[in-house]
Amino acid sequence: MTQPSEKPADSAADSQVPKAVINRLSLYLRELQRLVRDGHETTSSTQLGKLLEFTDAQVRKDLAYFGQFGYPGIGYRCSELMGRIKEILGTDHRWPLAMVGLGNLGRALLGYRGFTHQGFEIVCAFDVDEAKVGRQFDGIPVHHLDQMVDIIPQLGIRLAIIAVPAPSAQKVADSLVAAGIEGILNFAPVTIAVPKHVNLEGVDLAIELEQLSFAVVNKHGR
Amino acid sequence: MTQPSEKPADSAADSQVPKAVINRLSLYLRELQRLVRDGHETTSSTQLGKLLEFTDAQVRKDLAYFGQFGYPGIGYRCSELMGRIKEILGTDHRWPLAMVGLGNLGRALLGYRGFTHQGFEIVCAFDVDEAKVGRQFDGIPVHHLDQMVDIIPQLGIRLAIIAVPAPSAQKVADSLVAAGIEGILNFAPVTIAVPKHVNLEGVDLAIELEQLSFAVVNKHGR
Repeated sequence: MTQPSEKPADSAADSQVPKAVINRLSLYLRELQRLVRDGHETTSSTQLGKLLEFTDAQVRKDLAYFGQFGYPGIGYRCSELMGRIKEILGTDHRWPLAMVGLGNLGRALLGYRGFTHQGFEIVCAFDVDEAKVGRQFDGIPVHHLDQMVDIIPQLGIRLAIIAVPAPSAQKVADSLVAAGIEGILNFAPVTIAVPKHVNLEGVDLAIELEQLSFAVVNKHGR
Repeated sequence: MTQPSEKPADSAADSQVPKAVINRLSLYLRELQRLVRDGHETTSSTQLGKLLEFTDAQVRKDLAYFGQFGYPGIGYRCSELMGRIKEILGTDHRWPLAMVGLGNLGRALLGYRGFTHQGFEIVCAFDVDEAKVGRQFDGIPVHHLDQMVDIIPQLGIRLAIIAVPAPSAQKVADSLVAAGIEGILNFAPVTIAVPKHVNLEGVDLAIELEQLSFAVVNKHGR
């Protein structure tokens, strides 16, 4: 899970929508995708809230940032609301992605099907290891870091994932910014700085483990 | 980020605390850790809420599930509240972890420093690949899957991470359950079933990318 607090949400400041609301949109979207998959046609703020354990008022307030989506006496039409949320999140179209770093994590993420399911497709990778550059991994061509500045604009890539060791992360981020990247997902366990016009998310996988330890302690004791 | 909706939170049902509240506890904890690191001694529900973009009422309501932590005229004492949340999450003591699957993702997670920072330590790994069994990766011994049932109870391991390919995930989960594991973090992009007494979290990394695409679309257009 990202740390909403790590960095002020520039986009939120710009658009007046709190970053945490955008995070909840993703959760509403997953829930709607599941409802549609299960054959449900409509839902309500109460149902959505209950499924996600938010109050119905929170759900309505979150959605109200973006317009009026409900119908009196019906509630929300699942596939319509799903489509609208995808539009808002920008995932109603496909995003080509660049992966930087083909160590264990980078190679693992190349094959992560959760990305493609939501419209994100890794189309090229960058590394400095001469044993990897020029080859393909999972069908994805690997280029040298130095080629970033040519290839990223060429392929119209706006989002990149950093999966390099911590000491290289800042240098990689700088190169991505120089190549015109607009958004970076950083898996390197280090804080990196980017200019204000570039969006940055960091990933904190320990949060999921904390959820587990809570559940286990509550069920089985310390 | 985990999908709070994927599976009803057994622990929440047991303890009457919604799963989403526990998720927010992790966020409060990170924020408090940051406040303490920056030398802050006290904070308030308004400040915590603002930093995380929740309402102060939400912060107070979340914490009220677990007791009364504030002081009139002072607010919360950061390091005290931090300690209490760690107690609640069960991370005031160290958790030894088992990693199953030493493919790219598993090997990447062995070295993930975010885990150790929050008290989680991978102490052993399991795989079926004879080229890996008996060796050490990052100083962590690799055993054969078949040894799980002996080693997990021996080392007092209660939590495990599944990082195997999707087709093997259910079989691995079954073996972990048989070995007495109480909580599983599943990175395999597939839904697995576990008995009711075992806690399960799934990881959805696409949520972070959706946050990015939103921010990028709002800042730079579609």
